Amino acid sequence: MIKVYGVHGSPFVRKVFIALDIKGVAYEIVRQMPFSGDEEYKKINPLAKVPTLVDGDLTIGDSKVICRYIDNAYPDPALYPADAADKARADWFEELGGTYVTELATGIFFQRFMRPFAFKQEPDEKLVADIIDNKLPPILDYLEGEIPANGFIFGEFTLADLSIVSPFINASYANYTVDSSKWPNLAGLIDRVKAIPQVATILAKEAETMGLKTNSATS
Amino acid sequence: MIKVYGVHGSPFVRKVFIALDIKGVAYEIVRQMPFSGDEEYKKINPLAKVPTLVDGDLTIGDSKVICRYIDNAYPDPALYPADAADKARADWFEELGGTYVTELATGIFFQRFMRPFAFKQEPDEKLVADIIDNKLPPILDYLEGEIPANGFIFGEFTLADLSIVSPFINASYANYTVDSSKWPNLAGLIDRVKAIPQVATILAKEAETMGLKTNSATS
Repeated sequence: MIKVYGVHGSPFVRKVFIALDIKGVAYEIVRQMPFSGDEEYKKINPLAKVPTLVDGDLTIGDSKVICRYIDNAYPDPALYPADAADKARADWFEELGGTYVTELATGIFFQRFMRPFAFKQEPDEKLVADIIDNKLPPILDYLEGEIPANGFIFGEFTLADLSIVSPFINASYANYTVDSSKWPNLAGLIDRVKAIPQVATILAKEAETMGLKTNSATS
Repeated sequence: MIKVYGVHGSPFVRKVFIALDIKGVAYEIVRQMPFSGDEEYKKINPLAKVPTLVDGDLTIGDSKVICRYIDNAYPDPALYPADAADKARADWFEELGGTYVTELATGIFFQRFMRPFAFKQEPDEKLVADIIDNKLPPILDYLEGEIPANGFIFGEFTLADLSIVSPFINASYANYTVDSSKWPNLAGLIDRVKAIPQVATILAKEAETMGLKTNSATS
């Protein structure tokens, strides 16, 4: 059976779980924290990042690489556009999702979530404010121009939608939400992606694993 | 005609030029330095990185995204493996090439090449030594185990070979060469990739543009 090394809550690991769930492909989760100093893990992923996927003889890292492999090896339903130009734009959105995640996930999420809960330290709110006020808006403006007011970027849902949205899920755990009065298309896309059943299921598992408070009817 | 924004000497832009040259696709180079603060450029590439490719209505950044697009849109000759698992491994090597380039290109190359020539500063040789002695060897060990003693990773040349080699070309401009007694397969791959005619042509253009001393017969 396919093995996925990683943990619930990573914006990258999340993409792989959801892609496999949508494809209906069974997998085993091998719990692995990123950058843990685990020398055995570095033998299969020298970057020490998560996720890593093992499928038979194949061992690969990086969520973009893994998700493209899943889509090629298990083609139904397709999670990338078929047309070469659309596929390239989807790839570009996925690349962007993996870069501004640095600002969001290692910035806002690390300061407001990881520091207090994992390290018992106060968040650096000045740094968070700089990210929110200065670093993020140009990329939000760019994304806003690329996202439609309704539906998904390429009509049907693709991993480009999930890649753009995934970092904002982590930021939401740290009480940052995209301002829907300034960036309505992006804010709408986040809601539409979160409403997909396989996404909602993974987010519920994250809430359970990470001890998050949710807005469910019972809370 | 296709436009490529970038400059000779970037390990990422180099891949795109070589891929287009091998495909025999004509293109125009638009000179663009990365991180230049050029607000007009950020409208087409919000990361301010190079390369960016414009082909008709399509505008995409990131050398990996661009090279995959080139291979899909201009399929002959193929520059990635056809098999899904091999294609995934090629993708993974390309991803790795874009990460340790950070150590090599922004480390050794920046210190020893950019600092003296562009900023008239002394290189920080202590930082360079830490990269060479501590940071690079684990990734070189990993690559050594993945590269064959002869030929290319997937038999025929693919962009996985070029992606692994490209950062080491920049490091060679800063007098760093991979020790062939410790990593013979990797050192051999670097030589084999540099001997490909379209690679050699681009490297000659880099030498001319960047004012490098070469080992040609006339020097």
